[in-house]
Amino acid sequence: MQDGEIRYLPGWKVPLTIWWDEEKKVVKLIDQTLLPDEVKAIECDNWMDMWEAIKVLRIRGAPSLGVAGAFALAVEAQRFEGDEEGFFRKMEEVKEIVKVRPTAVNLEWGVKRVCGKLKENRGSGVENLKDIALKEAIKIMEEDIEINKKIGEYGLEIFNKWKPKDGKTYRILTHCNAGSLATGGYGTALGIIRTAFKKEIPLHVFVDETRPLLQGARITAWELHEEGIPLTLIVDNSAGWVLKRENIDMIIVGADRITGNGNTANKIGTYSLSILAKENKVPFYVAAPTSTIDSRILSGEDVEIEVRDYTEITQFRRLDIAPFLGEKGVRNYAFDVTPHENIDGIITERGIIEHPNRLKIERLLKSIGRL
Amino acid sequence: MQDGEIRYLPGWKVPLTIWWDEEKKVVKLIDQTLLPDEVKAIECDNWMDMWEAIKVLRIRGAPSLGVAGAFALAVEAQRFEGDEEGFFRKMEEVKEIVKVRPTAVNLEWGVKRVCGKLKENRGSGVENLKDIALKEAIKIMEEDIEINKKIGEYGLEIFNKWKPKDGKTYRILTHCNAGSLATGGYGTALGIIRTAFKKEIPLHVFVDETRPLLQGARITAWELHEEGIPLTLIVDNSAGWVLKRENIDMIIVGADRITGNGNTANKIGTYSLSILAKENKVPFYVAAPTSTIDSRILSGEDVEIEVRDYTEITQFRRLDIAPFLGEKGVRNYAFDVTPHENIDGIITERGIIEHPNRLKIERLLKSIGRL
Repeated sequence: MQDGEIRYLPGWKVPLTIWWDEEKKVVKLIDQTLLPDEVKAIECDNWMDMWEAIKVLRIRGAPSLGVAGAFALAVEAQRFEGDEEGFFRKMEEVKEIVKVRPTAVNLEWGVKRVCGKLKENRGSGVENLKDIALKEAIKIMEEDIEINKKIGEYGLEIFNKWKPKDGKTYRILTHCNAGSLATGGYGTALGIIRTAFKKEIPLHVFVDETRPLLQGARITAWELHEEGIPLTLIVDNSAGWVLKRENIDMIIVGADRITGNGNTANKIGTYSLSILAKENKVPFYVAAPTSTIDSRILSGEDVEIEVRDYTEITQFRRLDIAPFLGEKGVRNYAFDVTPHENIDGIITERGIIEHPNRLKIERLLKSIGRL
Repeated sequence: MQDGEIRYLPGWKVPLTIWWDEEKKVVKLIDQTLLPDEVKAIECDNWMDMWEAIKVLRIRGAPSLGVAGAFALAVEAQRFEGDEEGFFRKMEEVKEIVKVRPTAVNLEWGVKRVCGKLKENRGSGVENLKDIALKEAIKIMEEDIEINKKIGEYGLEIFNKWKPKDGKTYRILTHCNAGSLATGGYGTALGIIRTAFKKEIPLHVFVDETRPLLQGARITAWELHEEGIPLTLIVDNSAGWVLKRENIDMIIVGADRITGNGNTANKIGTYSLSILAKENKVPFYVAAPTSTIDSRILSGEDVEIEVRDYTEITQFRRLDIAPFLGEKGVRNYAFDVTPHENIDGIITERGIIEHPNRLKIERLLKSIGRL
């Protein structure tokens, strides 16, 4: 589907996050830094443009980054001229892109998947390899959408498990953006909400604005509003009080990296939410594809937490809020780690891992041949 | 002391919050909405100007509001012309100002104190009453500063009770602004920090930016920076992670209304902090004058929680963040209530109420003749 410059999933109003424009031979992606003021796609015809787009969060969200990493290789492959040895050298160079966002494992995962495919086909010639890289990136994007839809289906189980406190409407709180624009399309946490909404399960979503970059206010609230899903925007520090006062039924968030025991790195503020949920006995769910699970890391202590530029906090759209503070006067953690004990379930495309722990995650990974 | 238009406490760099200009016969107050860009005092020569200044938070912070309420009566009294009956009618009208900010009890307290003094002197003539109103307002302001200094002295006890986790520097987290500009001068939570800093107790303050109006980033961080006290600014949703990762030694916040059992209404986000403190075993202190205690209310359930305009969340300096959301799509609680069970101590000008409860607060109020 195409609407001018922008593409959509049939039946939905939020655009796809990233796609291949076969005519122009470029990757297009929605520039999420412009939302909600402008819905505009930018074009990338080389990997450095992809690098920049990832760096400044024109594209963000763990599953999206998996797709973006794959497309970085694919787009650079398309414009390569030279022999196969040079081609693989170039691909090695592009792999550096994984360092731009160290916390989300999917970026590395997407890059590795394309590289793996290329290595399998070593010796088949540059033109063939170009084609393989592009097909694999497109496949990763399309698979991600299908995976999200499956997460949405499995997510319906939690609406059977829990009844709304007011007997009528599920009141769900979410943090940051685990929506269509955090993925290839459709969404993880918001994918579950979409699926439930389509099934006419009555629901109302409370959205943490998510400082410093306001992905909740700018992206999640916008996505929900576009789809006609009822929502209430709140500031992050009011989430605890809202859990207590507004009869929230459940929390659903996304994930940037899930360790071998279920500890979950996600947008800064998720850890706090999990503690507040425990205190107020509100079920706490993580929605993520199994590609987010990093079995090499067993504990949250070992996840590298990205610390971003301090001006994200001290400036707002280039206006100074606290002009006198330099880098040393600010700490801008981009992520935190939620202990698995605080998680009621991780909702994946393979089902829900209830009360996740090392054993259950091992079992799941074995069942899909990853261990 | 006077520095052009602005007045200061001797030895400190943060200006006084509000004062009487005898020459111009006006109340002057620092317009806190302009901080930290501009340090500028505005003039009020009537109670409606005071009403507006309180409404839009040019002056804010519970103890400040007590002083401001008193000055609203005093300034309106000065310009009154007529007989004593008319004078008291006018004062009744000005008392409406307490409705502008319903959660902070001090506003009502300051207004009542001036009104009480006027009633005691009923029949003494309008000119005398004008004088009494003004003297009482000035007295309330001066007393508030003395009270804060006493809170600071008692606050030193917590540095004896707890040792810094790193053996060197106390790492203190605070929320919103309970500083000089939240009071007549000097500050409650920040008053303790100032006193400790003057005593050369090594400390480092972590400051929650405090959405939506950023009193932490704009006012607390600025106050600390002006006084040369080391600080780190963080976004509110990272406070839990910072407690866990940055070895925070204690949390000190202010209060807008303390109920008869010690439940504490304070800036939205305080409740969440108290839960996160409990989880991470970080001592949690409230610093407030005894005038903040409202013994008419026994439980936090009965505190009126101010809900402020939604555009405080959806706009930033008049720029839209989420333009499509109307009032119905946003919930802007200005305060929350922290259960007394989560509070290690309330630090007052009469000493510390450790693990506050109904009995201990009754005992304190009796000892000062308020019960």
